Amino acid sequence: MISRNKAIIDDLILNYFRSLPENKLTESMAYSMNLGGKRLRPSLVLLSSRLFGGEEKEVYPMALAMEMIHTYSLIHDDLPAMDDDDLRRGKPTNHKVFGEASAILAGDALLNEAFTILLANYGVKSREGAEAALFISRAAGREGMILGQVHDLENEKKRATLEELVECHNKKTGELIAASLTAPAILYRAEKDEVDKIHTFGIQLGLAFQIQDDILDRTSTKEVLGKSIGKDGASGKSTYVELFGIEKSREMAREVTDSCLEILSTLDRDTRELAELTSLLLNRTY
Amino acid sequence: MISRNKAIIDDLILNYFRSLPENKLTESMAYSMNLGGKRLRPSLVLLSSRLFGGEEKEVYPMALAMEMIHTYSLIHDDLPAMDDDDLRRGKPTNHKVFGEASAILAGDALLNEAFTILLANYGVKSREGAEAALFISRAAGREGMILGQVHDLENEKKRATLEELVECHNKKTGELIAASLTAPAILYRAEKDEVDKIHTFGIQLGLAFQIQDDILDRTSTKEVLGKSIGKDGASGKSTYVELFGIEKSREMAREVTDSCLEILSTLDRDTRELAELTSLLLNRTY
Repeated sequence: MISRNKAIIDDLILNYFRSLPENKLTESMAYSMNLGGKRLRPSLVLLSSRLFGGEEKEVYPMALAMEMIHTYSLIHDDLPAMDDDDLRRGKPTNHKVFGEASAILAGDALLNEAFTILLANYGVKSREGAEAALFISRAAGREGMILGQVHDLENEKKRATLEELVECHNKKTGELIAASLTAPAILYRAEKDEVDKIHTFGIQLGLAFQIQDDILDRTSTKEVLGKSIGKDGASGKSTYVELFGIEKSREMAREVTDSCLEILSTLDRDTRELAELTSLLLNRTY
Repeated sequence: MISRNKAIIDDLILNYFRSLPENKLTESMAYSMNLGGKRLRPSLVLLSSRLFGGEEKEVYPMALAMEMIHTYSLIHDDLPAMDDDDLRRGKPTNHKVFGEASAILAGDALLNEAFTILLANYGVKSREGAEAALFISRAAGREGMILGQVHDLENEKKRATLEELVECHNKKTGELIAASLTAPAILYRAEKDEVDKIHTFGIQLGLAFQIQDDILDRTSTKEVLGKSIGKDGASGKSTYVELFGIEKSREMAREVTDSCLEILSTLDRDTRELAELTSLLLNRTY
Protein backbone atom coordinates (compact mmCIF):
# COMPACT_ATOMS: atom_id res chain seq x y z
CA MET A 1 0.00 0.00 0.00
CA ILE A 2 2.81 2.38 0.89
CA SER A 3 4.85 1.62 -2.20
CA ARG A 4 1.73 1.96 -4.36
CA ASN A 5 1.06 5.43 -2.94
CA LYS A 6 4.68 6.42 -3.37
CA ALA A 7 4.63 5.32 -7.01
CA ILE A 8 1.44 7.31 -7.67
CA ILE A 9 2.96 10.42 -6.12
CA ASP A 10 6.34 10.09 -7.82
CA ASP A 11 4.45 9.89 -11.12
CA LEU A 12 2.21 12.84 -10.28
CA ILE A 13 5.23 15.01 -9.57
CA LEU A 14 7.11 13.91 -12.67
CA ASN A 15 4.13 14.61 -14.92
CA TYR A 16 3.34 17.93 -13.29
CA PHE A 17 6.78 19.36 -13.89
CA ARG A 18 6.93 17.93 -17.41
CA SER A 19 3.80 19.98 -18.15
CA LEU A 20 5.44 23.28 -17.10
CA PRO A 21 7.40 25.60 -19.41
CA GLU A 22 11.10 24.75 -19.24
CA ASN A 23 13.25 27.37 -17.59
CA LYS A 24 15.86 27.59 -14.85
CA LEU A 25 13.23 28.14 -12.17
CA THR A 26 11.04 25.15 -12.99
CA GLU A 27 14.19 23.04 -13.45
CA SER A 28 15.39 23.76 -9.92
CA MET A 29 11.88 23.30 -8.47
CA ALA A 30 11.60 19.94 -10.26
CA TYR A 31 15.08 18.85 -9.14
CA SER A 32 14.18 18.88 -5.44
CA MET A 33 10.66 17.54 -5.99
CA ASN A 34 12.02 14.59 -7.96
CA LEU A 35 14.63 13.58 -5.36
CA GLY A 36 12.24 10.97 -4.03
CA GLY A 37 11.77 10.46 -0.32
CA LYS A 38 9.04 8.70 1.60
CA ARG A 39 6.25 10.92 0.27
CA LEU A 40 4.61 10.66 3.68
CA ARG A 41 2.48 13.80 3.55
CA PRO A 42 0.94 13.21 0.10
CA SER A 43 0.37 9.54 1.01
CA LEU A 44 -1.57 10.69 4.06
CA VAL A 45 -3.69 12.91 1.81
CA LEU A 46 -4.60 9.87 -0.31
CA LEU A 47 -5.30 7.67 2.74
CA SER A 48 -7.42 10.33 4.41
CA SER A 49 -9.38 10.91 1.23
CA ARG A 50 -10.24 7.20 1.09
CA LEU A 51 -11.06 7.21 4.79
CA PHE A 52 -13.59 10.00 4.41
CA GLY A 53 -15.22 8.63 1.29
CA GLY A 54 -13.56 10.85 -1.30
CA GLU A 55 -12.55 10.06 -4.85
CA GLU A 56 -8.79 9.49 -4.73
CA LYS A 57 -8.00 11.30 -7.97
CA GLU A 58 -9.74 14.40 -6.73
CA VAL A 59 -7.08 14.89 -4.05
CA TYR A 60 -4.07 14.34 -6.32
CA PRO A 61 -3.49 18.11 -6.63
CA MET A 62 -3.77 18.43 -2.84
CA ALA A 63 -1.19 15.66 -2.40
CA LEU A 64 1.10 17.47 -4.83
CA ALA A 65 0.67 20.78 -3.00
CA MET A 66 1.51 19.19 0.39
CA GLU A 67 4.72 17.72 -1.02
CA MET A 68 5.60 21.12 -2.49
CA ILE A 69 5.22 22.80 0.89
CA HIS A 70 7.33 20.09 2.52
CA THR A 71 10.00 20.32 -0.20
CA TYR A 72 10.24 24.13 -0.07
CA SER A 73 10.82 23.87 3.68
CA LEU A 74 13.65 21.37 3.10
CA ILE A 75 15.31 23.53 0.42
CA HIS A 76 15.32 26.56 2.73
CA ASP A 77 16.32 24.42 5.74
CA ASP A 78 19.35 23.09 3.89
CA LEU A 79 20.70 26.57 3.04
CA PRO A 80 24.09 27.59 4.48
CA ALA A 81 22.42 30.20 6.70
CA MET A 82 20.13 27.51 8.14
CA ASP A 83 21.28 23.87 8.59
CA ASP A 84 23.97 24.09 5.89
CA ASP A 85 23.46 20.61 4.47
CA ASP A 86 25.13 19.35 1.30
CA LEU A 87 23.20 16.14 1.01
CA ARG A 88 19.48 15.39 0.81
CA ARG A 89 18.07 12.01 -0.18
CA GLY A 90 21.54 10.91 -1.23
CA LYS A 91 21.91 13.75 -3.74
CA PRO A 92 23.43 17.25 -3.56
CA THR A 93 21.06 19.76 -1.99
CA ASN A 94 19.36 22.35 -4.22
CA HIS A 95 21.78 25.21 -3.47
CA LYS A 96 24.76 22.91 -4.14
CA VAL A 97 23.47 22.33 -7.67
CA PHE A 98 21.85 25.65 -8.57
CA GLY A 99 23.44 28.15 -6.16
CA GLU A 100 22.00 29.84 -3.10
CA ALA A 101 20.05 32.63 -4.80
CA SER A 102 18.31 30.16 -7.08
CA ALA A 103 17.56 27.82 -4.15
CA ILE A 104 15.90 30.61 -2.17
CA LEU A 105 13.71 31.42 -5.19
CA ALA A 106 12.94 27.74 -5.93
CA GLY A 107 11.70 27.36 -2.35
CA ASP A 108 9.61 30.51 -2.60
CA ALA A 109 8.16 29.32 -5.91
CA LEU A 110 7.21 25.89 -4.52
CA LEU A 111 5.38 27.46 -1.58
CA ASN A 112 3.60 29.87 -3.92
CA GLU A 113 2.79 27.10 -6.41
CA ALA A 114 1.23 25.00 -3.66
CA PHE A 115 -1.29 27.79 -3.06
CA THR A 116 -1.90 28.28 -6.77
CA ILE A 117 -2.72 24.57 -7.02
CA LEU A 118 -4.92 24.62 -3.91
CA LEU A 119 -6.84 27.68 -5.10
CA ALA A 120 -7.27 26.47 -8.69
CA ASN A 121 -8.37 22.93 -7.76
CA TYR A 122 -10.32 23.49 -4.55
CA GLY A 123 -10.61 27.16 -3.56
CA VAL A 124 -12.54 28.30 -6.61
CA LYS A 125 -14.65 25.13 -6.70
CA SER A 126 -16.31 24.95 -3.30
CA ARG A 127 -16.43 26.52 0.10
CA GLU A 128 -15.14 23.29 1.65
CA GLY A 129 -12.25 23.37 -0.83
CA ALA A 130 -11.33 26.89 0.24
CA GLU A 131 -11.61 25.90 3.89
CA ALA A 132 -9.31 22.93 3.35
CA ALA A 133 -6.78 25.24 1.66
CA LEU A 134 -7.05 27.71 4.55
CA PHE A 135 -6.42 24.92 7.04
CA ILE A 136 -3.25 23.92 5.18
CA SER A 137 -2.14 27.54 4.98
CA ARG A 138 -2.43 28.01 8.75
CA ALA A 139 -0.63 24.73 9.42
CA ALA A 140 2.27 25.75 7.18
CA GLY A 141 2.63 29.33 8.34
CA ARG A 142 3.51 31.55 11.28
CA GLU A 143 1.33 29.57 13.71
CA GLY A 144 2.53 26.20 12.40
CA MET A 145 5.53 24.87 10.54
CA ILE A 146 7.46 28.12 10.21
CA LEU A 147 7.03 28.91 13.91
CA GLY A 148 8.38 25.41 14.58
CA GLN A 149 11.44 26.19 12.51
CA VAL A 150 12.02 29.33 14.54
CA HIS A 151 11.71 27.28 17.76
CA ASP A 152 14.12 24.78 16.24
CA LEU A 153 16.73 27.51 15.68
CA GLU A 154 16.29 28.64 19.29
CA ASN A 155 16.62 25.08 20.62
CA GLU A 156 20.02 24.80 18.97
CA LYS A 157 21.33 27.36 21.38
CA LYS A 158 19.97 25.98 24.65
CA ARG A 159 18.90 22.79 26.39
CA ALA A 160 15.15 22.62 25.80
CA THR A 161 12.67 21.14 28.26
CA LEU A 162 10.51 18.17 27.18
CA GLU A 163 7.60 20.57 26.87
CA GLU A 164 9.54 22.90 24.57
CA LEU A 165 10.73 19.96 22.49
CA VAL A 166 7.21 18.61 22.03
CA GLU A 167 5.94 22.09 21.13
CA CYS A 168 8.75 22.48 18.59
CA HIS A 169 8.10 19.07 16.99
CA ASN A 170 4.35 19.59 16.92
CA LYS A 171 4.75 22.86 15.08
CA LYS A 172 7.68 21.97 12.84
CA THR A 173 6.56 18.48 11.82
CA GLY A 174 3.19 17.69 13.36
CA GLU A 175 1.07 20.50 11.96
CA LEU A 176 1.83 19.75 8.29
CA ILE A 177 1.41 16.00 8.76
CA ALA A 178 -1.85 16.64 10.59
CA ALA A 179 -3.03 19.02 7.86
CA SER A 180 -2.39 16.31 5.24
CA LEU A 181 -4.99 14.21 7.03
CA THR A 182 -7.34 16.99 8.11
CA ALA A 183 -7.68 18.88 4.82
CA PRO A 184 -9.32 15.92 3.00
CA ALA A 185 -11.65 15.46 5.99
CA ILE A 186 -12.71 19.10 5.62
CA LEU A 187 -13.04 18.77 1.85
CA TYR A 188 -15.33 15.75 2.24
CA ARG A 189 -17.40 17.41 4.99
CA ALA A 190 -16.56 15.06 7.84
CA GLU A 191 -18.28 15.86 11.15
CA LYS A 192 -16.40 18.30 13.38
CA ASP A 193 -15.74 15.54 15.90
CA GLU A 194 -14.04 13.43 13.22
CA VAL A 195 -12.05 16.39 11.92
CA ASP A 196 -10.76 17.01 15.44
CA LYS A 197 -9.88 13.36 15.96
CA ILE A 198 -7.97 12.96 12.70
CA HIS A 199 -6.11 16.18 13.48
CA THR A 200 -5.10 14.97 16.94
CA PHE A 201 -4.05 11.67 15.41
CA GLY A 202 -1.91 13.57 12.87
CA ILE A 203 -0.17 15.65 15.53
CA GLN A 204 0.67 12.48 17.49
CA LEU A 205 1.80 10.69 14.33
CA GLY A 206 4.10 13.63 13.60
CA LEU A 207 5.56 13.39 17.08
CA ALA A 208 6.22 9.65 16.77
CA PHE A 209 7.79 10.35 13.38
CA GLN A 210 10.05 13.05 14.80
CA ILE A 211 11.21 10.96 17.77
CA GLN A 212 12.15 8.24 15.24
CA ASP A 213 14.01 10.89 13.25
CA ASP A 214 16.02 11.85 16.32
CA ILE A 215 16.85 8.18 16.94
CA LEU A 216 17.80 7.48 13.32
CA ASP A 217 20.02 10.57 13.26
CA ARG A 218 22.10 8.80 15.93
CA THR A 219 21.80 5.13 14.97
CA SER A 220 21.64 5.04 11.16
CA THR A 221 24.19 5.88 8.47
CA LYS A 222 24.52 8.65 5.93
CA GLU A 223 24.14 6.04 3.16
CA VAL A 224 20.84 4.72 4.47
CA LEU A 225 19.30 8.10 5.34
CA GLY A 226 20.68 9.94 2.31
CA LYS A 227 21.51 12.99 4.42
CA SER A 228 24.18 14.11 6.86
CA ILE A 229 23.77 12.43 10.25
CA GLY A 230 24.95 12.99 13.79
CA LYS A 231 24.82 16.76 13.31
CA ASP A 232 22.22 17.20 16.07
CA GLY A 233 24.41 15.59 18.71
CA ALA A 234 27.53 17.35 17.48
CA SER A 235 25.89 20.77 17.64
CA GLY A 236 24.45 20.13 21.12
CA LYS A 237 20.96 20.63 19.71
CA SER A 238 18.11 19.49 21.94
CA THR A 239 16.60 16.25 20.67
CA TYR A 240 14.82 13.31 22.31
CA VAL A 241 18.05 11.31 22.19
CA GLU A 242 20.01 14.16 23.76
CA LEU A 243 17.50 14.55 26.57
CA PHE A 244 16.55 10.91 27.24
CA GLY A 245 19.02 8.59 25.53
CA ILE A 246 18.22 6.06 22.81
CA GLU A 247 16.42 3.38 24.82
CA LYS A 248 14.07 5.77 26.58
CA SER A 249 13.41 7.57 23.28
CA ARG A 250 12.45 4.25 21.65
CA GLU A 251 10.03 3.60 24.47
CA MET A 252 8.52 7.06 24.07
CA ALA A 253 8.10 6.54 20.31
CA ARG A 254 6.25 3.28 21.06
CA GLU A 255 3.99 5.01 23.57
CA VAL A 256 3.11 7.82 21.17
CA THR A 257 2.46 5.24 18.43
CA ASP A 258 0.10 3.38 20.76
CA SER A 259 -1.81 6.55 21.48
CA CYS A 260 -2.09 7.12 17.70
CA LEU A 261 -3.64 3.68 17.24
CA GLU A 262 -6.00 4.32 20.12
CA ILE A 263 -7.28 7.53 18.55
CA LEU A 264 -7.81 5.71 15.24
CA SER A 265 -9.87 3.03 16.97
CA THR A 266 -12.37 5.66 18.10
CA LEU A 267 -13.16 6.65 14.50
CA ASP A 268 -16.15 4.82 13.07
CA ARG A 269 -14.39 4.32 9.73
CA ASP A 270 -12.17 1.73 8.10
CA THR A 271 -8.84 2.88 9.53
CA ARG A 272 -6.84 -0.26 8.75
CA GLU A 273 -4.58 1.36 6.15
CA LEU A 274 -3.75 4.27 8.44
CA ALA A 275 -3.09 1.90 11.36
CA GLU A 276 -0.76 -0.14 9.17
CA LEU A 277 1.15 2.96 8.12
CA THR A 278 1.40 4.13 11.74
CA SER A 279 2.96 0.85 12.83
CA LEU A 280 5.29 0.76 9.83
CA LEU A 281 6.60 4.24 10.64
CA LEU A 282 7.59 3.10 14.15
CA ASN A 283 9.82 0.44 12.63
CA ARG A 284 11.20 2.46 9.74
CA THR A 285 14.93 2.42 9.13
CA TYR A 286 15.17 5.58 7.00
CA MET B 1 -5.11 61.09 -1.82
CA ILE B 2 -1.79 59.27 -1.85
CA SER B 3 -0.82 60.30 1.66
CA ARG B 4 -4.32 59.36 2.89
CA ASN B 5 -3.97 55.87 1.43
CA LYS B 6 -0.48 55.50 2.85
CA ALA B 7 -1.70 56.49 6.31
CA ILE B 8 -4.56 53.97 6.15
CA ILE B 9 -2.17 51.21 5.13
CA ASP B 10 0.51 52.06 7.68
CA ASP B 11 -2.20 51.86 10.33
CA LEU B 12 -3.60 48.59 8.99
CA ILE B 13 -0.17 46.98 9.19
CA LEU B 14 0.59 48.32 12.64
CA ASN B 15 -2.73 47.07 14.02
CA TYR B 16 -2.46 43.70 12.32
CA PHE B 17 0.88 42.85 13.86
CA ARG B 18 -0.18 44.20 17.24
CA SER B 19 -2.98 41.64 17.17
CA LEU B 20 -0.60 38.69 16.68
CA PRO B 21 1.03 36.69 19.49
CA GLU B 22 4.44 38.16 20.29
CA ASN B 23 7.37 35.98 19.33
CA LYS B 24 10.62 36.28 17.40
CA LEU B 25 8.94 35.36 14.14
CA THR B 26 6.14 37.91 14.28
CA GLU B 27 8.64 40.51 15.52
CA SER B 28 10.86 40.08 12.45
CA MET B 29 7.84 39.98 10.10
CA ALA B 30 6.52 43.19 11.66
CA TYR B 31 9.92 44.88 11.49
CA SER B 32 10.08 44.80 7.71
CA MET B 33 6.38 45.49 7.24
CA ASN B 34 6.62 48.59 9.44
CA LEU B 35 9.63 50.09 7.63
CA GLY B 36 7.27 52.30 5.63
CA GLY B 37 7.74 52.81 1.93
CA LYS B 38 5.40 54.13 -0.70
CA ARG B 39 2.74 51.43 -0.12
CA LEU B 40 2.08 51.49 -3.86
CA ARG B 41 0.56 48.01 -4.23
CA PRO B 42 -1.93 48.26 -1.34
CA SER B 43 -2.85 51.80 -2.46
CA LEU B 44 -3.67 50.40 -5.89
CA VAL B 45 -5.91 47.80 -4.24
CA LEU B 46 -7.87 50.59 -2.52
CA LEU B 47 -8.08 52.72 -5.68
CA SER B 48 -9.18 49.77 -7.81
CA SER B 49 -11.80 48.79 -5.27
CA ARG B 50 -13.29 52.30 -5.46
CA LEU B 51 -13.05 52.24 -9.25
CA PHE B 52 -15.09 49.03 -9.49
CA GLY B 53 -17.71 50.03 -6.95
CA GLY B 54 -16.46 48.07 -3.97
CA GLU B 55 -16.58 48.93 -0.30
CA GLU B 56 -13.08 50.16 0.59
CA LYS B 57 -12.91 48.44 3.97
CA GLU B 58 -13.69 45.10 2.38
CA VAL B 59 -10.36 45.13 0.54
CA TYR B 60 -8.20 46.14 3.52
CA PRO B 61 -7.12 42.53 4.06
CA MET B 62 -6.28 42.24 0.34
CA ALA B 63 -4.20 45.41 0.54
CA LEU B 64 -2.37 43.96 3.55
CA ALA B 65 -1.72 40.68 1.73
CA MET B 66 -0.29 42.46 -1.32
CA GLU B 67 2.12 44.43 0.86
CA MET B 68 3.14 41.20 2.60
CA ILE B 69 3.98 39.55 -0.73
CA HIS B 70 5.96 42.62 -1.79
CA THR B 71 7.79 42.79 1.55
CA TYR B 72 8.70 39.08 1.59
CA SER B 73 10.23 39.52 -1.87
CA LEU B 74 12.32 42.46 -0.61
CA ILE B 75 13.53 40.54 2.47
CA HIS B 76 14.69 37.61 0.33
CA ASP B 77 16.09 39.96 -2.35
CA ASP B 78 18.23 41.75 0.23
CA LEU B 79 19.86 38.52 1.49
CA PRO B 80 23.64 38.14 1.04
CA ALA B 81 23.10 35.33 -1.49
CA MET B 82 20.87 37.63 -3.56
CA ASP B 83 21.47 41.42 -3.76
CA ASP B 84 23.31 41.60 -0.43
CA ASP B 85 21.85 44.91 0.72
CA ASP B 86 22.37 46.36 4.19
CA LEU B 87 19.89 49.18 3.88
CA ARG B 88 16.20 49.30 3.05
CA ARG B 89 14.04 52.37 3.54
CA GLY B 90 16.85 53.99 5.46
CA LYS B 91 17.00 51.20 8.04
CA PRO B 92 19.09 48.02 8.37
CA THR B 93 17.69 45.18 6.28
CA ASN B 94 15.92 42.29 8.01
CA HIS B 95 18.90 39.91 8.02
CA LYS B 96 21.15 42.65 9.40
CA VAL B 97 18.88 42.93 12.44
CA PHE B 98 17.66 39.34 12.96
CA GLY B 99 20.24 37.22 11.13
CA GLU B 100 20.00 35.38 7.83
CA ALA B 101 18.16 32.26 9.01
CA SER B 102 15.48 34.35 10.66
CA ALA B 103 15.16 36.60 7.59
CA ILE B 104 14.60 33.61 5.30
CA LEU B 105 11.85 32.38 7.63
CA ALA B 106 10.30 35.84 8.05
CA GLY B 107 10.03 36.09 4.26
CA ASP B 108 8.50 32.62 4.01
CA ALA B 109 6.04 33.47 6.77
CA LEU B 110 4.94 36.72 5.10
CA LEU B 111 4.26 34.94 1.81
CA ASN B 112 2.36 32.21 3.64
CA GLU B 113 0.45 34.74 5.75
CA ALA B 114 -0.66 36.60 2.63
CA PHE B 115 -2.41 33.43 1.43
CA THR B 116 -3.91 32.76 4.86
CA ILE B 117 -5.38 36.27 4.79
CA LEU B 118 -6.62 35.92 1.20
CA LEU B 119 -8.23 32.55 1.90
CA ALA B 120 -9.81 33.59 5.20
CA ASN B 121 -11.22 36.90 3.94
CA TYR B 122 -12.10 36.08 0.33
CA GLY B 123 -11.47 32.46 -0.61
CA VAL B 124 -13.94 30.93 1.83
CA LYS B 125 -16.50 33.69 1.27
CA SER B 126 -17.19 33.67 -2.45
CA ARG B 127 -16.11 32.17 -5.73
CA GLU B 128 -15.01 35.62 -6.94
CA GLY B 129 -12.94 35.96 -3.77
CA ALA B 130 -11.18 32.68 -4.46
CA GLU B 131 -10.62 33.71 -8.09
CA ALA B 132 -9.11 37.01 -7.01
CA ALA B 133 -6.76 35.12 -4.65
CA LEU B 134 -5.82 32.71 -7.44
CA PHE B 135 -5.02 35.63 -9.74
CA ILE B 136 -2.70 37.11 -7.11
CA SER B 137 -1.08 33.73 -6.53
CA ARG B 138 -0.25 33.30 -10.23
CA ALA B 139 1.07 36.86 -10.47
CA ALA B 140 3.39 36.30 -7.51
CA GLY B 141 4.65 32.85 -8.43
CA ARG B 142 6.65 30.90 -10.98
CA GLU B 143 4.92 32.53 -13.96
CA GLY B 144 5.12 36.00 -12.45
CA MET B 145 7.24 37.81 -9.88
CA ILE B 146 9.53 34.91 -8.97
CA LEU B 147 10.25 34.16 -12.63
CA GLY B 148 11.12 37.86 -12.99
CA GLN B 149 13.59 37.56 -10.13
CA VAL B 150 15.22 34.60 -11.87
CA HIS B 151 15.45 36.65 -15.11
CA ASP B 152 16.91 39.49 -13.05
CA LEU B 153 19.70 37.24 -11.74
CA GLU B 154 20.43 36.14 -15.32
CA ASN B 155 20.49 39.74 -16.58
CA GLU B 156 23.22 40.55 -14.08
CA LYS B 157 25.57 38.32 -16.00
CA LYS B 158 24.91 39.52 -19.53
CA ARG B 159 23.82 42.53 -21.58
CA ALA B 160 20.09 42.03 -22.03
CA THR B 161 18.16 43.13 -25.10
CA LEU B 162 15.31 45.66 -24.71
CA GLU B 163 12.88 42.78 -25.17
CA GLU B 164 14.50 40.76 -22.35
CA LEU B 165 14.56 43.81 -20.10
CA VAL B 166 10.85 44.55 -20.65
CA GLU B 167 10.01 40.87 -20.05
CA CYS B 168 12.04 40.90 -16.83
CA HIS B 169 10.44 44.12 -15.54
CA ASN B 170 6.94 42.96 -16.48
CA LYS B 171 7.39 39.76 -14.51
CA LYS B 172 9.39 41.09 -11.58
CA THR B 173 7.46 44.32 -10.99
CA GLY B 174 4.55 44.55 -13.41
CA GLU B 175 2.64 41.38 -12.55
CA LEU B 176 2.24 42.16 -8.84
CA ILE B 177 1.34 45.79 -9.48
CA ALA B 178 -1.16 44.66 -12.12
CA ALA B 179 -2.61 42.04 -9.74
CA SER B 180 -3.17 44.76 -7.12
CA LEU B 181 -5.50 46.43 -9.59
CA THR B 182 -6.97 43.32 -11.21
CA ALA B 183 -7.85 41.32 -8.08
CA PRO B 184 -10.40 43.92 -6.84
CA ALA B 185 -11.88 44.03 -10.36
CA ILE B 186 -12.37 40.25 -10.21
CA LEU B 187 -13.76 40.44 -6.68
CA TYR B 188 -16.34 43.02 -7.74
CA ARG B 189 -17.26 41.11 -10.89
CA ALA B 190 -16.11 43.63 -13.46
CA GLU B 191 -16.69 42.63 -17.10
CA LYS B 192 -13.91 40.59 -18.70
CA ASP B 193 -13.07 43.49 -21.00
CA GLU B 194 -12.54 45.79 -18.01
CA VAL B 195 -10.50 43.19 -16.14
CA ASP B 196 -8.22 42.87 -19.17
CA LYS B 197 -7.87 46.64 -19.52
CA ILE B 198 -7.00 47.28 -15.89
CA HIS B 199 -4.48 44.43 -16.05
CA THR B 200 -2.80 45.89 -19.15
CA PHE B 201 -2.77 49.28 -17.46
CA GLY B 202 -1.12 47.71 -14.41
CA ILE B 203 1.61 46.04 -16.44
CA GLN B 204 2.40 49.33 -18.18
CA LEU B 205 2.31 51.23 -14.88
CA GLY B 206 4.79 48.70 -13.48
CA LEU B 207 7.08 49.29 -16.45
CA ALA B 208 6.97 53.07 -16.06
CA PHE B 209 7.66 52.58 -12.35
CA GLN B 210 10.64 50.33 -13.04
CA ILE B 211 12.19 52.67 -15.63
CA GLN B 212 11.93 55.44 -13.01
CA ASP B 213 13.61 53.09 -10.52
CA ASP B 214 16.51 52.58 -12.91
CA ILE B 215 16.82 56.35 -13.38
CA LEU B 216 16.65 57.12 -9.64
CA ASP B 217 19.27 54.46 -8.92
CA ARG B 218 21.64 56.62 -10.98
CA THR B 219 20.48 60.15 -10.21
CA SER B 220 19.28 60.13 -6.60
CA THR B 221 21.11 59.69 -3.29
CA LYS B 222 21.22 56.95 -0.67
CA GLU B 223 19.66 59.38 1.82
CA VAL B 224 16.65 60.17 -0.36
CA LEU B 225 16.01 56.58 -1.54
CA GLY B 226 16.83 54.92 1.78
CA LYS B 227 18.70 52.11 0.05
CA SER B 228 22.08 51.53 -1.56
CA ILE B 229 22.32 53.20 -4.96
CA GLY B 230 24.49 52.93 -8.05
CA LYS B 231 24.86 49.17 -7.55
CA ASP B 232 23.22 48.40 -10.89
CA GLY B 233 25.75 50.41 -12.87
CA ALA B 234 28.68 49.17 -10.78
CA SER B 235 27.72 45.51 -11.31
CA GLY B 236 27.21 45.96 -15.04
CA LYS B 237 23.59 44.87 -14.63
CA SER B 238 21.31 45.54 -17.58
CA THR B 239 18.98 48.46 -16.86
CA TYR B 240 17.23 51.07 -18.97
CA VAL B 241 19.92 53.60 -18.04
CA GLU B 242 22.70 51.16 -18.95
CA LEU B 243 21.14 50.41 -22.32
CA PHE B 244 19.81 53.84 -23.31
CA GLY B 245 21.27 56.52 -21.06
CA ILE B 246 19.34 58.81 -18.72
CA GLU B 247 17.72 61.20 -21.21
CA LYS B 248 16.38 58.48 -23.49
CA SER B 249 15.17 56.52 -20.43
CA ARG B 250 13.24 59.58 -19.20
CA GLU B 251 11.61 59.88 -22.61
CA MET B 252 10.67 56.19 -22.53
CA ALA B 253 9.16 56.55 -19.04
CA ARG B 254 7.05 59.46 -20.33
CA GLU B 255 5.90 57.42 -23.32
CA VAL B 256 4.89 54.46 -21.18
CA THR B 257 3.09 56.82 -18.78
CA ASP B 258 1.18 58.31 -21.70
CA SER B 259 0.10 54.85 -22.82
CA CYS B 260 -1.09 54.16 -19.25
CA LEU B 261 -3.27 57.28 -19.31
CA GLU B 262 -4.61 56.30 -22.72
CA ILE B 263 -5.71 52.87 -21.46
CA LEU B 264 -7.42 54.52 -18.47
CA SER B 265 -9.36 56.84 -20.75
CA THR B 266 -10.97 53.83 -22.47
CA LEU B 267 -12.51 52.66 -19.18
CA ASP B 268 -16.05 53.91 -18.66
CA ARG B 269 -15.38 54.62 -14.96
CA ASP B 270 -14.16 57.53 -12.87
CA THR B 271 -10.42 56.99 -13.31
CA ARG B 272 -9.25 60.41 -12.10
CA GLU B 273 -7.55 59.13 -8.95
CA LEU B 274 -5.65 56.47 -10.87
CA ALA B 275 -4.64 58.99 -13.55
CA GLU B 276 -3.38 61.35 -10.86
CA LEU B 277 -1.32 58.59 -9.26
CA THR B 278 0.10 57.58 -12.64
CA SER B 279 1.31 61.11 -13.35
CA LEU B 280 2.70 61.50 -9.83
CA LEU B 281 4.76 58.31 -10.17
CA LEU B 282 6.44 59.70 -13.29
CA ASN B 283 7.68 62.67 -11.29
CA ARG B 284 8.56 60.83 -8.09
CA THR B 285 11.92 61.50 -6.51
CA TYR B 286 12.10 58.39 -4.31
